[in-house]
Amino acid sequence: MDAIQRELLMQVAGLHEIPAGAYNIRSNGQSIERKSTGNIEIINKPDKSGIEIHIKPGTKKESVHIPVIMSQSGLEEVVYNDFYIGENADVTIIAGCGIHNGGDAASRHDGIHRFFIGKNAHVKYVEKHYGSGDGSGERIMNPVTEISLDEDSFMEMETVQIRGVDSTKRENRAHLKAGAKLVVMERLMTHGKQKAESWFDVQLDGEDSSANIVSRSVARDESWQLFQSHISGNTRCSGHTECDAIIMENAKISAVPQLTANHVDAALIHEAAIGKIAGEQLIKLMTLGLTEAEAEEQIISGFLK
Amino acid sequence: MDAIQRELLMQVAGLHEIPAGAYNIRSNGQSIERKSTGNIEIINKPDKSGIEIHIKPGTKKESVHIPVIMSQSGLEEVVYNDFYIGENADVTIIAGCGIHNGGDAASRHDGIHRFFIGKNAHVKYVEKHYGSGDGSGERIMNPVTEISLDEDSFMEMETVQIRGVDSTKRENRAHLKAGAKLVVMERLMTHGKQKAESWFDVQLDGEDSSANIVSRSVARDESWQLFQSHISGNTRCSGHTECDAIIMENAKISAVPQLTANHVDAALIHEAAIGKIAGEQLIKLMTLGLTEAEAEEQIISGFLK
Repeated sequence: MDAIQRELLMQVAGLHEIPAGAYNIRSNGQSIERKSTGNIEIINKPDKSGIEIHIKPGTKKESVHIPVIMSQSGLEEVVYNDFYIGENADVTIIAGCGIHNGGDAASRHDGIHRFFIGKNAHVKYVEKHYGSGDGSGERIMNPVTEISLDEDSFMEMETVQIRGVDSTKRENRAHLKAGAKLVVMERLMTHGKQKAESWFDVQLDGEDSSANIVSRSVARDESWQLFQSHISGNTRCSGHTECDAIIMENAKISAVPQLTANHVDAALIHEAAIGKIAGEQLIKLMTLGLTEAEAEEQIISGFLK
Repeated sequence: MDAIQRELLMQVAGLHEIPAGAYNIRSNGQSIERKSTGNIEIINKPDKSGIEIHIKPGTKKESVHIPVIMSQSGLEEVVYNDFYIGENADVTIIAGCGIHNGGDAASRHDGIHRFFIGKNAHVKYVEKHYGSGDGSGERIMNPVTEISLDEDSFMEMETVQIRGVDSTKRENRAHLKAGAKLVVMERLMTHGKQKAESWFDVQLDGEDSSANIVSRSVARDESWQLFQSHISGNTRCSGHTECDAIIMENAKISAVPQLTANHVDAALIHEAAIGKIAGEQLIKLMTLGLTEAEAEEQIISGFLK
């Protein structure tokens, strides 16, 4: 790996060195390093590009890193990764994609991730997207996440895209069985002429299942964002979705949440707010000696933290 | 008018007798009574079915009643009514439609209402929909409301559908100029196998325009409701939309609000909640001596008041 690849790896996976636990590092379209452990097996998908991650029932406090980095301009790839998480496991999965594009051709990574989460398992899933490079070629990422949560399982999903992704279309679909719980925290910033679409479809199928989908975003410059989230309550269940967005300069933001109650015991709530940074907040920080630009940066970084 | 027609008139317009001010009463497809006043002129539309209501600039504290009643089973009609409200006027407009269907054929009234509201004018617009009759024929109402609000004008719209409408598809569109304000309160109850769709599209085009769209609904039995509301903030403006729904028995409810900020000074907020009547509320009223059914009725009527 060269310096650019190491920087990407640091940005998307927080990795300065080879991680503990299982990992698979994909660089410019190929698996370049991989390690399985006694409880976590990583194998190639037999039929298409991508990997399968098999986590044994009862695996506790282990982690899997599967970062993807691309530094070759013009590379376009679709990768299918499937996660099989055994009953009662408790694991952390760090995915993420970093694209450095120094050329004129578009670089694109579409990662299709499927999660099959066993009964009573607990998964923390972190996904970071990052772009860099001075080339005029676009950096494009279209992640798809499909989640099947078995009874009493829990998934906590944290998705972050702070900088450098020119175009993204995110699709997230989840089905929850009885007692299952899904918590999503999405943080997104767009700048320049970037476009970002984010779409959630959550089906609360099992009794006492619950979902909490929170999106926080900042749209700067000429960028454009669309947030759509659909929660269906199909039985006794509870769902909450929230979208808070800060709009700046000439950006445009749409928020389209959708709640569907198909059962009398479905309790569903939604909130959304779009607005600019409050003037009082800026003035307060400026009286403490910050410039207006510094005050804005501080507010934004607090909002996206 | 017979007893059924008089009852419909009472339900939709609160009229026990001929109203004060200007009015036009439409019954079974025809204008049966009409009165213009010195400031308010009602004339037939030259080209299609319906009327034009011309209100002189500066008209103060006057009212117009334009109820529609249908008691003949199988009648289907589309009626176009245009309201021209002069600058600085301050008027109340009571519309509404009552259908009594004692037969097997569907009765349908589609009222397309356009409002051209002059500068600084103030309009209170009340629209009630009501159905009755034991026939198996459906009672269908599809109201369309198109609103143009000139500078600094204000429209307050109250729309109520409490009982007896089998199918309704409501479309409301509004364009607001600088300083204009729109306040909408929708109250809706569906029962049996009724279907109700309600759709708002509000364009905040002028500086300091504002909109507040509130929907409260109760869905009972096997009924189905869809609430959609879209507020676009195209300049410095503020918009709020709220949808609270009570679900009962085997009903289904969807709420799809949409906020679009096309300008950095657009401040937009949305809230939605769908759920059943809280158990504690029921228990509290039942300890006061009400049956469960009575307690439910009391909570619903308070919620829709």
